[in-house]
Amino acid sequence: MALIVQKYGGTSVGTIERIRNVAERVAKFKMLGHQVVVVLSAMSGETNRLIALAKEIQKEPDPREMDVLISTGEQVTIALLAMALKDLGLRAKSYTGPQVRIVTDDAYTKARILSIDEANIRADLDSGHVVVVAGFQGVDENGNITTLGRGGSDTTGVALAAALKADECQIYTDVDGVYTTDPRIVPEARKLNTITFEEMLELASLGSKVLQIRSVEFAGKYKVKLRVLSSFEEEGEGTLITFEEDSMEQPIISGIAFNRDEAKCTILGVPDKPGIAAHILGPIADANIDVDMIVQNVGANNTTDFTFTVHRGELKKAMAVLDAVKGEIGASSVTGDDKIAKVSIVGVGMRTHAGVASKMFRALAAENINLQMISTSEIKVSVVVEDKYMELAVRALHQAFELDQVTA
Amino acid sequence: MALIVQKYGGTSVGTIERIRNVAERVAKFKMLGHQVVVVLSAMSGETNRLIALAKEIQKEPDPREMDVLISTGEQVTIALLAMALKDLGLRAKSYTGPQVRIVTDDAYTKARILSIDEANIRADLDSGHVVVVAGFQGVDENGNITTLGRGGSDTTGVALAAALKADECQIYTDVDGVYTTDPRIVPEARKLNTITFEEMLELASLGSKVLQIRSVEFAGKYKVKLRVLSSFEEEGEGTLITFEEDSMEQPIISGIAFNRDEAKCTILGVPDKPGIAAHILGPIADANIDVDMIVQNVGANNTTDFTFTVHRGELKKAMAVLDAVKGEIGASSVTGDDKIAKVSIVGVGMRTHAGVASKMFRALAAENINLQMISTSEIKVSVVVEDKYMELAVRALHQAFELDQVTA
Repeated sequence: MALIVQKYGGTSVGTIERIRNVAERVAKFKMLGHQVVVVLSAMSGETNRLIALAKEIQKEPDPREMDVLISTGEQVTIALLAMALKDLGLRAKSYTGPQVRIVTDDAYTKARILSIDEANIRADLDSGHVVVVAGFQGVDENGNITTLGRGGSDTTGVALAAALKADECQIYTDVDGVYTTDPRIVPEARKLNTITFEEMLELASLGSKVLQIRSVEFAGKYKVKLRVLSSFEEEGEGTLITFEEDSMEQPIISGIAFNRDEAKCTILGVPDKPGIAAHILGPIADANIDVDMIVQNVGANNTTDFTFTVHRGELKKAMAVLDAVKGEIGASSVTGDDKIAKVSIVGVGMRTHAGVASKMFRALAAENINLQMISTSEIKVSVVVEDKYMELAVRALHQAFELDQVTA
Repeated sequence: MALIVQKYGGTSVGTIERIRNVAERVAKFKMLGHQVVVVLSAMSGETNRLIALAKEIQKEPDPREMDVLISTGEQVTIALLAMALKDLGLRAKSYTGPQVRIVTDDAYTKARILSIDEANIRADLDSGHVVVVAGFQGVDENGNITTLGRGGSDTTGVALAAALKADECQIYTDVDGVYTTDPRIVPEARKLNTITFEEMLELASLGSKVLQIRSVEFAGKYKVKLRVLSSFEEEGEGTLITFEEDSMEQPIISGIAFNRDEAKCTILGVPDKPGIAAHILGPIADANIDVDMIVQNVGANNTTDFTFTVHRGELKKAMAVLDAVKGEIGASSVTGDDKIAKVSIVGVGMRTHAGVASKMFRALAAENINLQMISTSEIKVSVVVEDKYMELAVRALHQAFELDQVTA
């Protein structure tokens, strides 16, 4: 007998029929003798519907009241699933976030979990109930309703699994696992049976939107065994997210991430002296613009070129800031480019294998793809290329690293 | 400065535009220096939508989960109204029933209020907030969400007014007050400026659906000053519900109620001996059939005829019970009739005025309306007539008692 936390996303509970399907899946696990805690999102579309209502009333809705409003979405699904489970003859009981007492800070609309009182849930599990918990929501120390922000239901699932010391946290979604890359771009993309937490973090933040990044961090921190599965398939083991030490041998590269969400800003002819980077990026940070990649090259005549990427929607704002900064630091010119794409290879195996980056660059050169920026971390190499080459680059790398071949 | 509790029903908050209107009305009271607590129902149609979802899942939805589900309706409206109030520059804060701690028993879907913790609300009022409370809902001693049943938001309003010792509880609805009778039947029907609690109770239970009867009982018990008003009119004092001792002089008759919801069962030729009424009504009660009027006449040959009314939808069930009972008690025959209507005159003034009933019977006789049953209480006389005469009877009585004339 195991204790399993299962989290189902909005599309998995998007209709009455799908809620019934979830109930049947839960029943199967219960029949096998497991204890099951189910964490649910709102029906797909419901949260957006509520937010639209709020915005009709107030252009920038009050955050406290926003959380009161949107937390109703999950409250509806937990009640409906509990009914569906009872309809199958199971014992079931729903809990809102405040009812569990998932205590968070008071940062409305993006609260962080501080503690979970798991005593009542454990008592219900021990008396044979399936416990159905509303994801995404909690309560602050003063009894105010809070929500955890988009994707927060994943975090609720992992946090509950940690609090209950569950044997596994299963995240059910509309894909059947984590892939080496997006199958829409590379048809040979292969589902991974396992992936490490660190790789998952790099892949998630790079745009493989299977799991919310905060939940992965949480799982890593509390050593929760996390598995991604499809709620629309009967069979399948999904992808298990492992700790590095669990695996005998790691593939060099696990996956290829990419996105077209960024734009590039370059300041040319910057005097190469201490403090210059801070002088450029300080005003950018003050304008609340997030910066991703940063590259600086030493150039000729004691000047340097300084390049960084921002979210594509913030390029204009960033350029305005730089135009103001340009004179102050004596730079020769400023350019912006939103026709770029970022492509990254991720894998814990590259830690112990030399030559991964050069293999990547060779594969791209063979396709005549020019590299505009390069940035590396311990388990990731990212390059910026002209955006029209993005798909070609991803396919070339997928083949070069033989990701279609089953390894370990 | 007064403390006012205002309750708005589902139609008053049925659209974003109407929620804005409520906010503006509340703002007016606030600007006059009053402290305002607002109690809200769900947007009209929302509760039914949620119930329909539940019934798609479970034919007889689990009551605990039903309350988790339908309590979301008011949670949406309190958040939206609080936003609308803030948009007008007011301080505002929403409370769900559990957040107030409106403690109820655990009779899901029809819970009764046991206590209200008003401390937080009072603190918010004192710091200048408008407090917006979800009607219809509470929490039991074990933290389970409960609801008070249809019309329960009225009860929440009155209970909060009692707990806060409010100066007035205003119930906003889609009619502008209590009328002498239904204006759709008698165009001369007149809005009453005042009505006593007892009259209101008789009128409410007889089908004037302005206020939920439990809330009126509650207001009477805790001496809450209750006023019914229209949320769609700018001006107007509505109808104030008074305690009898407040009024100098009472009109003899305040209003005329009527309904076609009932059917009549008659057992003929029943031996006239002790215990016979219990022998007939016992099995009816065992079958969970509510009985309204009961009339028994002594007949010839030591037999009696026994007649009572039930809800029209339960006539078949009642007749089946009586057919089984008939033999046991030696009755000669059993008949049922659902072509009846009940018409009642109500007024505390009849206590001190003789001849009210005979005036009623004369007015009906003048229209050739035959009386099938008569039943009287201290402040009410009810008659059952053939249903096709109902409107005529109501009009004749309205004229006979000069209800179109303004009195005291």
